[in-house]
Amino acid sequence: MEKKFIEWLREEIPPHPLLRLGPGDDAALLRLAGSDDCVVTVDLLSDHVDFELPQIDPRLIGRKALAVNLSDLAAMAAQPIGAVVALLVPQRLDSLELARRIYEGLLACAEEHGVAIAGGDTNSWPGDLVISVTAIGHVSNDAAFRRNGARLGDHVVVTGDFGGSILQKHLTFTPRIEEALWLQKHAEVHAGMDVSDGLSLDLFRLAEESGCGAVLEASKIPVSEAAQELASIQRGEKTALRHALEDGEDFELLLAIPAMEAERLVRTQPLRTRLTVIGRFVAERGLWMVAENGERRPLEPRGFEHQFDS
Amino acid sequence: MEKKFIEWLREEIPPHPLLRLGPGDDAALLRLAGSDDCVVTVDLLSDHVDFELPQIDPRLIGRKALAVNLSDLAAMAAQPIGAVVALLVPQRLDSLELARRIYEGLLACAEEHGVAIAGGDTNSWPGDLVISVTAIGHVSNDAAFRRNGARLGDHVVVTGDFGGSILQKHLTFTPRIEEALWLQKHAEVHAGMDVSDGLSLDLFRLAEESGCGAVLEASKIPVSEAAQELASIQRGEKTALRHALEDGEDFELLLAIPAMEAERLVRTQPLRTRLTVIGRFVAERGLWMVAENGERRPLEPRGFEHQFDS
Repeated sequence: MEKKFIEWLREEIPPHPLLRLGPGDDAALLRLAGSDDCVVTVDLLSDHVDFELPQIDPRLIGRKALAVNLSDLAAMAAQPIGAVVALLVPQRLDSLELARRIYEGLLACAEEHGVAIAGGDTNSWPGDLVISVTAIGHVSNDAAFRRNGARLGDHVVVTGDFGGSILQKHLTFTPRIEEALWLQKHAEVHAGMDVSDGLSLDLFRLAEESGCGAVLEASKIPVSEAAQELASIQRGEKTALRHALEDGEDFELLLAIPAMEAERLVRTQPLRTRLTVIGRFVAERGLWMVAENGERRPLEPRGFEHQFDS
Repeated sequence: MEKKFIEWLREEIPPHPLLRLGPGDDAALLRLAGSDDCVVTVDLLSDHVDFELPQIDPRLIGRKALAVNLSDLAAMAAQPIGAVVALLVPQRLDSLELARRIYEGLLACAEEHGVAIAGGDTNSWPGDLVISVTAIGHVSNDAAFRRNGARLGDHVVVTGDFGGSILQKHLTFTPRIEEALWLQKHAEVHAGMDVSDGLSLDLFRLAEESGCGAVLEASKIPVSEAAQELASIQRGEKTALRHALEDGEDFELLLAIPAMEAERLVRTQPLRTRLTVIGRFVAERGLWMVAENGERRPLEPRGFEHQFDS
């Protein structure tokens, strides 16, 4: 497998202006802009936890393994530069063919977002498929969207819509890099993250990190068609709104933006992805939801609890 | 497991002057020196391939997972800054305790070498243990040791001794960071790599990348005590010299240094680790070995063939 795979991969990996030295040496060299900070994030996907191998196109695994990391870079308002890939393929399968197809999806996503594949470690083993991608980007000093900067009165702003990603979007989402970079440049953003574990849970975390709480307006939550479809399939087990609040893997941006700025953005809609104000940050810690009849109730933050993920 | 583990880990991870933002946000922020390139490398270790879990202290797994990456940074003469860790622990074991012990070894190694643990992704799954570490360093423009710079007449110089690492050194080796940084600063090094797959195979690769060959002198190869012990245990299946040439995971530096410079270094021995001239680079491609009786024969490059590793 080894040589054929390396040869194939070297041909497939396009040159990149910031990749000074790519696969083939002991490590890769990446050029960062002058005084920028280096932004780094890692995610690991594995069979049975994140997908079931025989039921999924391996290209979607490669795509997602990179895209979840790009979403983390977007959440920091960082410009992606490169990624390295650790891949462990089952010996019992045609491991060369599987590795190639995973890389096909990964490379297409890399090309789409201008990301250099800087290196990797591919092995086969007696176990099941595992892929871990580390993405590297850069951001100018103190311009990163952190989680702890939301201020009282800031509006809660989100990109796109929420819920039901399990039906498709969790595999095919577009990381909101373009949106994050535009907002960093043209708007005042006090805090930001990407919604990977569920809107209510991630908003709760951002508010906690910022030492405040948040009030959402039920009528403003952008509920996706998929959330409605899922609610309908499951025959009322959960409302579409609850799917929007509690399902994971939306990979949209969740931002704290000063009220007037947020209103201007929502009025002008300067991005390809819709911006929506869904609530505001308040002094009292915790989450609340204002129903359409004006009733305000505590909102339980729910979603997917990771073990250790940063 | 999740919250307890994150709490434990946050307490265990010491502050680091170059880690501007560590675990807990969407990505980590690392400060690189002004105009330096970012150096990045990844390695993945897995049960049954790199170790057998019940037979090994998990702290040694964590230590090795980081140390192999630091050896790759040393091979580029890069100063390590930080690392991110993807860890997949078996659900059937006490996964919190296992993750903690792996991190204990990893954190001790990180502290020893001034490496910031910048983030991670820890999950449990029905499969066996997998750990992938990505290390990040920096090196000033064009100062990295690459594989393609050896010139005719350069001496082949190595740190330390070779062979038999399976008896212990593959788990307890010291990455040659200090040595690489000293040599980069005080000596003229034309090419360099770390020996992870076997001295003869890695030398062959470095010579090939440089468009030349190399002649080794059998009497000069620093054969480790472990290689001698292994040869003796195996009752002559392989000589100790062959162990030194073909065993993997020595994690020593292999360098191309101009002849006079190399002789000066070997005479003065400026490092804590012994430097040895073991041969020279020649025009004709391939490897040769000169025996003690002066006879010169082709040398088969042998070692461990990775699948895709950079």
